[in-house]
Amino acid sequence: MKRIAIDMDEVIADTLTTHLEWYNRDYQDELKVSELEGMNLVQARPNARQAIESYYDREDFFRNIKVMAHSQEVLRELSEHYEIYITTAAMEVPASFQAKYEWLLEHFDFLNAMNFVFCGDKSIIRADYMVDDNVNQLRAFEGQGILFTAPRNVHETGYVRVNNWLEAKAWFMAQLQPCD
Amino acid sequence: MKRIAIDMDEVIADTLTTHLEWYNRDYQDELKVSELEGMNLVQARPNARQAIESYYDREDFFRNIKVMAHSQEVLRELSEHYEIYITTAAMEVPASFQAKYEWLLEHFDFLNAMNFVFCGDKSIIRADYMVDDNVNQLRAFEGQGILFTAPRNVHETGYVRVNNWLEAKAWFMAQLQPCD
Repeated sequence: MKRIAIDMDEVIADTLTTHLEWYNRDYQDELKVSELEGMNLVQARPNARQAIESYYDREDFFRNIKVMAHSQEVLRELSEHYEIYITTAAMEVPASFQAKYEWLLEHFDFLNAMNFVFCGDKSIIRADYMVDDNVNQLRAFEGQGILFTAPRNVHETGYVRVNNWLEAKAWFMAQLQPCD
Repeated sequence: MKRIAIDMDEVIADTLTTHLEWYNRDYQDELKVSELEGMNLVQARPNARQAIESYYDREDFFRNIKVMAHSQEVLRELSEHYEIYITTAAMEVPASFQAKYEWLLEHFDFLNAMNFVFCGDKSIIRADYMVDDNVNQLRAFEGQGILFTAPRNVHETGYVRVNNWLEAKAWFMAQLQPCD
């Protein structure tokens, strides 16, 4: 079986929506996802940088993030044909360890917890494919990178791109050989 | 630079000594490391299994473990010639996440936290070498495994073995080519 390494934030976890909700609530702003093309939240609202980044220190922030549409059903199906590992750059946000672990157990209980990886630099990951929204991580990875669309990466080129989990499913199912 | 993936428990962290201390304290026993050849603590004292395993749920257990002799000075020196990653099967002991992270920052502050990896199955690790006391993990790893001696693995054969960090240093320095 070939192996897929899958990112959490902005890939199976809809982190940006929660981040926007918290920011808009605390700053009485009405910033929308559609205004974030090619940039992250801090770049869009540099004056609120401290508050925006401080949410990462709060465990309840990560524990209550919504699941990305179709990620559960698609990963469940892909796990019949591929080894699925969850590889998240949790070392950037140490307060998230426990919350991320519990979130995965709650929403992806069909995956093996021994396949969860909390890392920093993803060049350490050995897999055939990596699905990630961060081109820097895909660049560091030695296998085939698949860019999962997020507002900040819409202008990136040079990677296979999937816009959502239904497209990701179609792409991975198309890679399967008859012998699988 | 070639890359070394290094385990924590029983390799840079002297987990067994703390485990023995806690067990002997709670059970008024006098079990010694020298009595654990070829087995782990639970195998040596099966009746105390529940207590012995329960220590893994306590964050203070992992936070206060002693550093393995010479591991700091040797890793500092090796880090001039190799990329050093710390790869620990923390998913087996989720209560340890925060404590292990803080322990690493305290005792190995010269390493980059982006090179810390909390995983389960180490077949996910891409590195040239892996130093581990667990032959199952070395078996799953695709690079060159180096078995770090611990009481439970003394009867294992088939791997390059180092008995301590001074031997590990000598082995890794001997691998360096003139061009490095």
